Amino acid sequence: MSRFWNPVVHTLTPYVPGEQPQMERLVKLNTNESPYGPSPKALAAIEQHNNDDLRLYPDPEGSALKKAIATLHGLDPKQVFVGNGSDEVLAHIFLGLLKQAKPVQFPDITYSFYPVYCKLFGIDYQTIPLGSDFAVHPEDFKVPSGGIIFPNPNAPTGRSISRAEIEALLSRNRDSVVVIDEAYVDYGTESCIPLLRGSACPENLVVVHTLSKSRALAGLRVGFAVSHPTLIEGLERVKNSFNSYPLGKLAQAGAIAAIEDQAHLESSCAKVIQTRERLVQVLAALGFETLPSTANFIFTRHPKHAGAKLYQALRDRGIIVRHFKLPRIEEFLRITIGTDDQTNTLLAALKEILV
Amino acid sequence: MSRFWNPVVHTLTPYVPGEQPQMERLVKLNTNESPYGPSPKALAAIEQHNNDDLRLYPDPEGSALKKAIATLHGLDPKQVFVGNGSDEVLAHIFLGLLKQAKPVQFPDITYSFYPVYCKLFGIDYQTIPLGSDFAVHPEDFKVPSGGIIFPNPNAPTGRSISRAEIEALLSRNRDSVVVIDEAYVDYGTESCIPLLRGSACPENLVVVHTLSKSRALAGLRVGFAVSHPTLIEGLERVKNSFNSYPLGKLAQAGAIAAIEDQAHLESSCAKVIQTRERLVQVLAALGFETLPSTANFIFTRHPKHAGAKLYQALRDRGIIVRHFKLPRIEEFLRITIGTDDQTNTLLAALKEILV
Repeated sequence: MSRFWNPVVHTLTPYVPGEQPQMERLVKLNTNESPYGPSPKALAAIEQHNNDDLRLYPDPEGSALKKAIATLHGLDPKQVFVGNGSDEVLAHIFLGLLKQAKPVQFPDITYSFYPVYCKLFGIDYQTIPLGSDFAVHPEDFKVPSGGIIFPNPNAPTGRSISRAEIEALLSRNRDSVVVIDEAYVDYGTESCIPLLRGSACPENLVVVHTLSKSRALAGLRVGFAVSHPTLIEGLERVKNSFNSYPLGKLAQAGAIAAIEDQAHLESSCAKVIQTRERLVQVLAALGFETLPSTANFIFTRHPKHAGAKLYQALRDRGIIVRHFKLPRIEEFLRITIGTDDQTNTLLAALKEILV
Repeated sequence: MSRFWNPVVHTLTPYVPGEQPQMERLVKLNTNESPYGPSPKALAAIEQHNNDDLRLYPDPEGSALKKAIATLHGLDPKQVFVGNGSDEVLAHIFLGLLKQAKPVQFPDITYSFYPVYCKLFGIDYQTIPLGSDFAVHPEDFKVPSGGIIFPNPNAPTGRSISRAEIEALLSRNRDSVVVIDEAYVDYGTESCIPLLRGSACPENLVVVHTLSKSRALAGLRVGFAVSHPTLIEGLERVKNSFNSYPLGKLAQAGAIAAIEDQAHLESSCAKVIQTRERLVQVLAALGFETLPSTANFIFTRHPKHAGAKLYQALRDRGIIVRHFKLPRIEEFLRITIGTDDQTNTLLAALKEILV
């Protein structure tokens, strides 16, 4: 505490990310990283740019990266905003688009960074309870609002809704921004990006992606938003009033190569999906109840074993998963889909613990 | 423009960085980059971390980097805050420490990002005119204030003041934060960091550094602040409410190696200083009036040639310097110190232009 802090700082309860322990031989299934490496083309591009030219500033606009993203998704580069991880992109969205006279709406159980941004920027918010099935029900988000944001699939539940449901939400909600956070979209969820293509692009839809999950570049810090050009222009104004150069030369080069290597993404995701389906089946046989997941993690509970105890028992065996001490979900574990070997180690440990 | 923007976005006039043109054979003396490459040890450290582990999140705290910075400067790691370039560090300082009931004070001629942060975060500010000698006169910063910030050496003038003058300012100004932006300190300015060592550390001094200038890593995006642990704690709260992982794995690895290679920094800076002194002498012989500079750039004007015309004439010859169309300084050019070859090309062009 310090009398020199801005008064808001005293009220902040920062977001706490999953830990990054430095222990050896750890089975790390707590932060939804890809169990497989990034595109070898990304590593090659980084190597190519790792030279004396690092003395020079990067392209402040990230133009080549925006073009690569636009090409992949059938959009105009003016529809693309890039940032230092999707967390930074979300921060600019909260300040630039979701800070309004009316409260922004998001689910009661969702990415726990959303209320943290609100605190930081002085934004009112209203939480909308998930159904008893732990699904997002878009019809519960009432008009008018200062904006609506949720991940699809939602985190930490892993449940997704269809693009048609989001289209219906957009048709009801034309007077505030709707942000769909598609961090985990590549593991079996319908993306909303097709809605942004061409002249039918709505003026109030923002879709956020990250390269930290399916592109396996959490260590590089790149995320992006795609939207109508007018909303992107607003985000650029905020970004250029905060940090002209959020993405360094290596991040831009690696991200471009990763975006262009769609085949690598698809094969990594296919392996993760296969492992996920096997994990869910074996867990069911052990008595676990797992929410339907289209993410690279599952959200699961055991009717006879407390979440906190399972978390600790796994940790004692060098397996780290995520447990949230929060209402409604304290009996659940969020488990990242690892390699087949890691999954076998996890399942063997759980069998031992449940005995 | 969009009706979905937060009202503040409409009022923003973003900072405009010096351009990064893609022309070949350019003599680029407009953004104060180092003419010499970064430490080879930094490039080697980046290469070593450019592997499949990029799939994992980086250390969100940047602990090893903080330790390296603390060791170099004789501080405790709790006195160090790191960010994605010093522009991001400054943004968090403005929001977390300089947003107060009273206006923050900075010089009328200074880093033009300061008023931009104020606009973004709704901070009142008051500009304090430089003297007619274009120097910062700390006695002009009156108590009380919501905080004081200026670069030392100042930009774009290149003029510096002594540590003793800043100590005197601190002794007069105990009730608001004083931020000294030492982006260019390594080219011959006394750093204020020694004031932060040990138990005499003031509770209200923040010193900001970047790795983009003397460490030649503008393309990597790393900056830091050192201060009293309580102010660092406030900045950590803001950072952890904005983006848990501002620095990727490659940025952390490269920055640590660069910080540890003080010999490389010293030899690069010695060469730049030598070139600067020669440039100033030859310019004087050509009739230029140059402010005394302890930076890696000079601020110079010619009594018989308009700044805008000189800027354009140089540009026509493929030499890019910086010109600000602003009151008091529109006759000046800000010229980055380049290699000896670049400096010779610049001087030859000026001789041609002045004829």
